[in-house]
Amino acid sequence: MVGTTYEGPGRLRTAPVDLAPPGPGELQIAVAYCGLCGTDLHLVHGDLDARVRTPLVFGHEASGTVAAVGAGVTGWAVGDPLTVMPLLWDGTCAACLAGHQHICRNLVFVGIDSPGALQQRWNVPASIAVPLPADLDLRTAALVEPAAVAVHDVRRSELQVGDRVVVLGGGPIGVLIACVAREAGARVLVAEIDASRRGRVSALGFEVLDPAGADLTAEVERWTGGVGADVVFEVSGAAAAARATTALARVRGTIVVVAIHTAAREIDLQRVFWRELRLLGARVYQRSDFERAIELLRRGVVPAAALISGVVPLEETAAAVEDLSAGRAMKILVHVAGTAGA
Amino acid sequence: MVGTTYEGPGRLRTAPVDLAPPGPGELQIAVAYCGLCGTDLHLVHGDLDARVRTPLVFGHEASGTVAAVGAGVTGWAVGDPLTVMPLLWDGTCAACLAGHQHICRNLVFVGIDSPGALQQRWNVPASIAVPLPADLDLRTAALVEPAAVAVHDVRRSELQVGDRVVVLGGGPIGVLIACVAREAGARVLVAEIDASRRGRVSALGFEVLDPAGADLTAEVERWTGGVGADVVFEVSGAAAAARATTALARVRGTIVVVAIHTAAREIDLQRVFWRELRLLGARVYQRSDFERAIELLRRGVVPAAALISGVVPLEETAAAVEDLSAGRAMKILVHVAGTAGA
Repeated sequence: MVGTTYEGPGRLRTAPVDLAPPGPGELQIAVAYCGLCGTDLHLVHGDLDARVRTPLVFGHEASGTVAAVGAGVTGWAVGDPLTVMPLLWDGTCAACLAGHQHICRNLVFVGIDSPGALQQRWNVPASIAVPLPADLDLRTAALVEPAAVAVHDVRRSELQVGDRVVVLGGGPIGVLIACVAREAGARVLVAEIDASRRGRVSALGFEVLDPAGADLTAEVERWTGGVGADVVFEVSGAAAAARATTALARVRGTIVVVAIHTAAREIDLQRVFWRELRLLGARVYQRSDFERAIELLRRGVVPAAALISGVVPLEETAAAVEDLSAGRAMKILVHVAGTAGA
Repeated sequence: MVGTTYEGPGRLRTAPVDLAPPGPGELQIAVAYCGLCGTDLHLVHGDLDARVRTPLVFGHEASGTVAAVGAGVTGWAVGDPLTVMPLLWDGTCAACLAGHQHICRNLVFVGIDSPGALQQRWNVPASIAVPLPADLDLRTAALVEPAAVAVHDVRRSELQVGDRVVVLGGGPIGVLIACVAREAGARVLVAEIDASRRGRVSALGFEVLDPAGADLTAEVERWTGGVGADVVFEVSGAAAAARATTALARVRGTIVVVAIHTAAREIDLQRVFWRELRLLGARVYQRSDFERAIELLRRGVVPAAALISGVVPLEETAAAVEDLSAGRAMKILVHVAGTAGA
């Protein structure tokens, strides 16, 4: 059994890993696929070194089947297909007690703060395992976690049927938000500077715009008949996009901050005031978001094939991270079960 | 009959004004008092010159009685006490059609965009006149408009009984918000840099803090047992205060932007994301806010006497504006009815 560990900035190693049996309350998962996301890129580049203990098996967008059932675990049998909601909360902090366990003050994010899915056998608490329907293939199921992010973002926005929605950023999360918002009855415009990504988004039937080549505010104004967007999702992480959000939203419109902004951003608070805007942060997901994401993937609302631009074995994880960092790929899955040594 | 007009930056003139009878659908008001607010200071200093047509009788925090009733107006009689909600909306724009008339895309703010209350007889559409109870004195009633701002801000925040609330800025609106929030069941801490204002706020029974002399974030953290504030009202307009808001709010906490921020402000979007914060703009008021404000003033929840630091005749308006601009006063009322020439 092999796994891929982060050893330090830019250094990954694929090698045999210890195979411990599942502890009490745990499931041992035979990992099938694990997607790579933007946070993984930050991790591999060393941006999370203050938080991470090396060597770390990372990865948190997993699908697989139950390989072994730990003592005291009920409701699971060997072979059951599953995914993992990679959040462990303390259950005792003010956030947890208020029902916001997913943003627990002491949250452990599995795959960053504890070992993740880039290994062929992975022990996790049964409480964070989420069953998959038999008719959802495991490759598609590796998208449940990012799709759950999108479901959470759309639910936070409280968008209504018929809303005009602008998504700033056409990467995987932006596209997933667009899909979930459309399913919820919205008409969606995606702004993305990369031409190849715009082509991919357009092929999914969304309206697209190049914010570098057009006056975004004027275009959204026109697109909404002078009213402004009901909801704006900021998924790009760019300072200019953050600055633009307030110009795009209608009176009492909603802006959802999805992206990581590594520095403070200039925000037009006068416009926030004048139009009584609402700006919301949205982070990770709740269990219901995971369940909804599974349903949307099963029904094909979220087009997995259009998002997955590559599938690689474990030992090509480093190359995949570089392709993603260079913008040469959309979503790459690591086929953990398909790696030599399995 | 006299009135005070804005003639250009820093230039006010008190002189006889034309006395037209009320038109159809209008009431003529014998203005008793008119408060001066921060917007009036901006106006007198010329900051709104792009919007204002001179000469302009300004003022929009009025109390008075009906002096004459225009054709077609029902439900009003000469002598009835009243105040004015100084908003005229078009009723046809997208904001109006969505129920947000108070932030109509083409809002006319009476006293800025059309003649205001600093005149002894004032004709206004009966639709924006709000009746006052007989037991509310007209001096106190001049605070209905700013109190309605505070009611609107607190309603926007959706604060709950038992919430810990931080108000950044202890001027008139900050104090009014503190009073309304306390009445709604919140415990309130007011941060204010001016010692004399802090003393005034403290005398009203609120906890106070000097943000220049203390670590605001650490103090709020301590005050909330490490949780953070449920609601933060940004009433100061200062860049540092805007920057601080996100550090003060708890997980899923609410920040209400009340102040005018004349430039874009740096906001920690990472914290907005991480704690799933909610940042809301709040502007002016709705009719129900006016009615609630009247009730709170009548019951003494909003302590008018503690807020009113001076009462002057019309011809001292310019001096009052300078006292307010220099921070030498809290709320000054112009006693319109008490001016020579009445």
